[in-house]
Amino acid sequence: MKKVVLGFSGGLDTSYCVKYLTNEKGYEVHSVIVNTGGFSDEELQEIEKRAYNLGVKSHKTVNAVRSYYDGVIKYLIFGNVLKNNTYPLSVSAERMSQALAIAEYVKEVGADAVAHGSTGAGNDQVRFDMVFHIMIPNVEIITPIRDMKLSREEEIAYLRSKGVEVNFEKAMYSINKGLWGTSVGGKETLTSNGMLPEEAWPTQLTKQGEEQVKLTFEKGELIGINDQKFAHPTEAIQYLQTIAGPFAIGRDIHVGDTIIGIKGRVGFEAAAPMVIIKAHHALEKHVLTKWQLTWKDQLAQFYGNWMHEGQIMDPVMRDIEAFLQHTQENVSGEVFVTLMPYRFQVTGIQSPYDLMSSKFGKYGEMNSGWSGDDVRGFSKIFGNQTMIWHQVKQSI
Amino acid sequence: MKKVVLGFSGGLDTSYCVKYLTNEKGYEVHSVIVNTGGFSDEELQEIEKRAYNLGVKSHKTVNAVRSYYDGVIKYLIFGNVLKNNTYPLSVSAERMSQALAIAEYVKEVGADAVAHGSTGAGNDQVRFDMVFHIMIPNVEIITPIRDMKLSREEEIAYLRSKGVEVNFEKAMYSINKGLWGTSVGGKETLTSNGMLPEEAWPTQLTKQGEEQVKLTFEKGELIGINDQKFAHPTEAIQYLQTIAGPFAIGRDIHVGDTIIGIKGRVGFEAAAPMVIIKAHHALEKHVLTKWQLTWKDQLAQFYGNWMHEGQIMDPVMRDIEAFLQHTQENVSGEVFVTLMPYRFQVTGIQSPYDLMSSKFGKYGEMNSGWSGDDVRGFSKIFGNQTMIWHQVKQSI
Amino acid sequence: MKKVVLGFSGGLDTSYCVKYLTNEKGYEVHSVIVNTGGFSDEELQEIEKRAYNLGVKSHKTVNAVRSYYDGVIKYLIFGNVLKNNTYPLSVSAERMSQALAIAEYVKEVGADAVAHGSTGAGNDQVRFDMVFHIMIPNVEIITPIRDMKLSREEEIAYLRSKGVEVNFEKAMYSINKGLWGTSVGGKETLTSNGMLPEEAWPTQLTKQGEEQVKLTFEKGELIGINDQKFAHPTEAIQYLQTIAGPFAIGRDIHVGDTIIGIKGRVGFEAAAPMVIIKAHHALEKHVLTKWQLTWKDQLAQFYGNWMHEGQIMDPVMRDIEAFLQHTQENVSGEVFVTLMPYRFQVTGIQSPYDLMSSKFGKYGEMNSGWSGDDVRGFSKIFGNQTMIWHQVKQSI
Amino acid sequence: MKKVVLGFSGGLDTSYCVKYLTNEKGYEVHSVIVNTGGFSDEELQEIEKRAYNLGVKSHKTVNAVRSYYDGVIKYLIFGNVLKNNTYPLSVSAERMSQALAIAEYVKEVGADAVAHGSTGAGNDQVRFDMVFHIMIPNVEIITPIRDMKLSREEEIAYLRSKGVEVNFEKAMYSINKGLWGTSVGGKETLTSNGMLPEEAWPTQLTKQGEEQVKLTFEKGELIGINDQKFAHPTEAIQYLQTIAGPFAIGRDIHVGDTIIGIKGRVGFEAAAPMVIIKAHHALEKHVLTKWQLTWKDQLAQFYGNWMHEGQIMDPVMRDIEAFLQHTQENVSGEVFVTLMPYRFQVTGIQSPYDLMSSKFGKYGEMNSGWSGDDVRGFSKIFGNQTMIWHQVKQSI
Repeated sequence: MKKVVLGFSGGLDTSYCVKYLTNEKGYEVHSVIVNTGGFSDEELQEIEKRAYNLGVKSHKTVNAVRSYYDGVIKYLIFGNVLKNNTYPLSVSAERMSQALAIAEYVKEVGADAVAHGSTGAGNDQVRFDMVFHIMIPNVEIITPIRDMKLSREEEIAYLRSKGVEVNFEKAMYSINKGLWGTSVGGKETLTSNGMLPEEAWPTQLTKQGEEQVKLTFEKGELIGINDQKFAHPTEAIQYLQTIAGPFAIGRDIHVGDTIIGIKGRVGFEAAAPMVIIKAHHALEKHVLTKWQLTWKDQLAQFYGNWMHEGQIMDPVMRDIEAFLQHTQENVSGEVFVTLMPYRFQVTGIQSPYDLMSSKFGKYGEMNSGWSGDDVRGFSKIFGNQTMIWHQVKQSI
Repeated sequence: MKKVVLGFSGGLDTSYCVKYLTNEKGYEVHSVIVNTGGFSDEELQEIEKRAYNLGVKSHKTVNAVRSYYDGVIKYLIFGNVLKNNTYPLSVSAERMSQALAIAEYVKEVGADAVAHGSTGAGNDQVRFDMVFHIMIPNVEIITPIRDMKLSREEEIAYLRSKGVEVNFEKAMYSINKGLWGTSVGGKETLTSNGMLPEEAWPTQLTKQGEEQVKLTFEKGELIGINDQKFAHPTEAIQYLQTIAGPFAIGRDIHVGDTIIGIKGRVGFEAAAPMVIIKAHHALEKHVLTKWQLTWKDQLAQFYGNWMHEGQIMDPVMRDIEAFLQHTQENVSGEVFVTLMPYRFQVTGIQSPYDLMSSKFGKYGEMNSGWSGDDVRGFSKIFGNQTMIWHQVKQSI
Repeated sequence: MKKVVLGFSGGLDTSYCVKYLTNEKGYEVHSVIVNTGGFSDEELQEIEKRAYNLGVKSHKTVNAVRSYYDGVIKYLIFGNVLKNNTYPLSVSAERMSQALAIAEYVKEVGADAVAHGSTGAGNDQVRFDMVFHIMIPNVEIITPIRDMKLSREEEIAYLRSKGVEVNFEKAMYSINKGLWGTSVGGKETLTSNGMLPEEAWPTQLTKQGEEQVKLTFEKGELIGINDQKFAHPTEAIQYLQTIAGPFAIGRDIHVGDTIIGIKGRVGFEAAAPMVIIKAHHALEKHVLTKWQLTWKDQLAQFYGNWMHEGQIMDPVMRDIEAFLQHTQENVSGEVFVTLMPYRFQVTGIQSPYDLMSSKFGKYGEMNSGWSGDDVRGFSKIFGNQTMIWHQVKQSI
Repeated sequence: MKKVVLGFSGGLDTSYCVKYLTNEKGYEVHSVIVNTGGFSDEELQEIEKRAYNLGVKSHKTVNAVRSYYDGVIKYLIFGNVLKNNTYPLSVSAERMSQALAIAEYVKEVGADAVAHGSTGAGNDQVRFDMVFHIMIPNVEIITPIRDMKLSREEEIAYLRSKGVEVNFEKAMYSINKGLWGTSVGGKETLTSNGMLPEEAWPTQLTKQGEEQVKLTFEKGELIGINDQKFAHPTEAIQYLQTIAGPFAIGRDIHVGDTIIGIKGRVGFEAAAPMVIIKAHHALEKHVLTKWQLTWKDQLAQFYGNWMHEGQIMDPVMRDIEAFLQHTQENVSGEVFVTLMPYRFQVTGIQSPYDLMSSKFGKYGEMNSGWSGDDVRGFSKIFGNQTMIWHQVKQSI
């Protein structure tokens, strides 16, 4: 009997896939869910139960939280990656980790096919397709929902016909949660105008006033919050989320270019990611040189876009990671942040590598180490070519 | 008698320069102030009076608000320029306009020398020096404060010795105001840690609740606010400032690389600039293609940095402006913004050029115009080279 | 009866298409050939005759030489575009012009479908597909050779069965000629090692010794050769080809990334294009500032790659063209070149905009306009941040 | 007695410096010469003798050939660095190595000052100044020739007055030789037009006909020539120079932007460097992905320019080196080159990492691994956004 590995979330689409692949296609279905930080143990057990109830041959839960951080998030932090200067790639990044973990599992199981529940209108189909084509090129990819352009009603009717009577009410908003943020799509985001209402956000405002928080970075990685150290940065991220989340920080709407060419809007909330990126960037502004900052920006922008487009396996990504890693050598120190309802402010940093040292002159106040004549000479030479250009131009 | 044109602000440093250039250097002093939107008529008259009291031969007030917009701000908006992703270049940009206007005036007056009151520790000295070297290369540049490394006390003592008894108390914070924002430096910004206190901000919070505002752009330029149209975008900017300023929006601290190599921090408040840039960028995300957005980012980042470093007269700046101008052809439409105390949210846009049109598929919901097989083919080809790379690698 | 417009070259593949579309698909076939400088009048008449003999309803010859220059080549020259630092995009660029002209003709004829003879293994299929999808999205695209994966033998057998008895011997090398160069593929280029033999090159060495040639540019465009002026740059290019071609100049092998991900090699000869690009670049090095040269390189590299990948209609291309056009304002003057068998040398330039003017100092010989102390000050400030970085590092 | 370390070449300028620093400034002079591959043992001994004859306290010869390669040339090869697409940075790169070695020696000697013989009109003054400011910021920098704007005649007269009667005839061309090429300046290069005559080139044509040479690279480094392996890449470079030099390969004229703003021309011959760079690049085109090639180009162009401008100690250079190093993982294999009088041709490569494998389709000939429909789908999606852009535009 042919085996198929199915990425399974427990939702309507992938529930349909279990039945369809078993009954219509004759596959032995091995479902797998890859947790990148969005599911509790209870939810994962519930999903496993549902999978077996639907009749899968086996179900596997992969904990990918650390590998997700080590392979992806770490570099998004190093690069201060915000797509279009807004979006921390909450969903795009975790799809890569999930696809890679599923591909690994396909090899482990020795499956003949791999299936995912993507529709034909989003980015995820491309991400899954690409990672599978690249990592397991001889394994067939099956995408029933996309191929048959099925409606919710058709899926529900089919499941009922097979005796599955689960309640698949369509939520007003579709929500995707992970370590690096939560996306919220639906209604207002389907058109170009309109903000998600307060009640649509999964994390509600429950803290008031101001709260100070201190983030400790070591070589670019978050290793401490206030006076607490963590065994792994993922724990620091999760802890910061519990502190900053209740301030309803990090909400915004991202307008983006999909891989398939259309434009789309999606809301997201990402308290910890936004605080971490802004704090990390503030520290970098103090410890990196001008051209380190400039090139990091350029490479990280590409890195984020290319990741977003599913190209995580292009070897250029490893080259850029080597660059980013190297830039972090001195990115160590503490960053001070004030959290407030709906917003936060980075208020300063402390680092032995801080280049803003009064030993070398105070901006706008005092110069030591150089004279007025040095700057006069500098200005003359720095503008010399442009001076010549204008002189030549005038003389014609 | 030799003539010198002196950039005059009415403060201690430039007051000193008037007396020094007249008495010690024997110059006929022609003072000039270039208003880039930071001075009221009363303030300008007060400054003129002070100049004549100090004994200048002539005093000139140049209104550069429109030329500042036309030559600089317009392109900062087209490029959504925020230095280090934070700072709208409030001061750097206006120094360019001021230096150019002063150079013009030097030619008009036929002066032998030009003087500015910069110290030796900041960016402005380089900006003035460079523009003067380039535009009026045969005119001597005199910078008494920088050259003699004078302290406030020495300047005051000298002025007193010449019978000038003005009150030159040192303000806690030094403030620079213009059309594109206000900078606030001092105390907390002189070290790497510490936020400016509430009372240090020139514009205090005086509005509560939420306020909706609609910005109308035409080819990238702000031409209307709510239902009001304006004769020139500078008026729209100023009007928006009266609406958004009282929400205390657009405050932040910028950590930056000076032209002379040291790092510096400076606070700024820029309600209208921040709202305009974010609104303009949101509109662009809807009407520009992915690669237009990408290249705009790269060129604008350089444009802002190069401007910041005083290089406005490099002809490459004109080339980039031609690029930026051309990208704005379709950047027309309305942007909806909600203003709140200390923050704002762009909530959507409306434009005939919006590429997020449901005619061509709804993101994540429905695809029209292509099939699942099209995407399957796309994914295969899009990842083809990376697939080959991994296959070749494995086969070794 | 349904109409199809067929891009027709007179070769085996497109001859097959005429018969197939007529007999098997029931189309009224309107053939069209777009001349981008590779065909003589005799050849075009021969192709027209062949089309009618095969039974087309109508045949059209489009002369696209000037529009090819105005829309594409001009910018390739402005940008000194050589893909991978080697290849002037001889074929890629002209496919864009041809596809656009065919799309225009489809609209004119009011055709229901458009057909091209591309196979499934090259770049051209994507270029034609993309331009058609973009410009005439509702017109069906038919590609019989690609879809049926036909072999030469099958095509010949089918044509014979329809009474067509033309001699379709497979040439050792497949050659594509146009205004911007000639490509030569086959045998040696099909593997990673091996140079095309002397006899494979369409243009043979027939001149010896040295020949001086003077190229006159005006705003970046070639308008004169030696003492001859031309009505249009295309004539100057063609004239230069008659001078430089017999020196067998501009031969090389390009190793490139196809749009579809595989790598490919192709030989090319491009005497006039290579001389023009190197001469134009030499002139630019004298008249443009450092950052103009730098940004031109970056934008032009992208422009060439994106063109190569069929993306000529992306509006970002128009934006980049606006940039490139603007950079050419001062690119006027004469360039002196020595032609020799198999190679050439740019020996110098003459331009009123030359920034290498001895008025402003002679490199390595004499400085005027600045002093040793100016440079000393410059060096100190220019390296200031890096000095601080090393001092801070050492002090830890 | 105060000590000064003097960079000493044995020429007129630095001979002057010995006497001047000793007699007029009262320094104990410690001369040092850093050999980066341009001097024979005999020449170095001759220079040492001359130094002692002039009265230095000590003279030191530093062999920096390997450190020059390890710290600089290796990355220039990884990056295929040719400034303005022409010049392998023959002189600029070695000045960095020399300045760093001299700074080291200053520390070793414990000198109070460091002196170099640069004039005020070239790049080298900035390179030496900057490296010294950065690495030994508290050591005084003395530049007698630059500061006193001395003419040759004045220097000779002064030396004679001190009893030095060496023959310092001015050569027609000033020549600088090192491992990475030889520069030739003078007469024709001082104006914008004119080629160096045959006799000006240090290496004359002495080989005829064609010669095949095979270069073996391992992770981007040249380790073998034909069937010979070398202990260190510097030996391979020197050996290749003995083979390729007599073909008079790699001659050209570079027109460049100096650090101080003026334009300058300089001839150079660099047989081995040009062959190595083109061979290395050819290999990379076969083994790297499209985006690896693209980003390497961008980073390497900056790396070369920043090196040229003396900024080798900026930590961003280390970050870029980490990137470049990582890209070389698969750059292993053999490259075949044909040498001919005045030119050469890379004819092919052989590598286990070659991505141009017929297993995955032959360019333009055969597609395996994908179907015509896959490409059709790809083209549709790849052009989707631009199609939408044009449709939206038309509908207005």
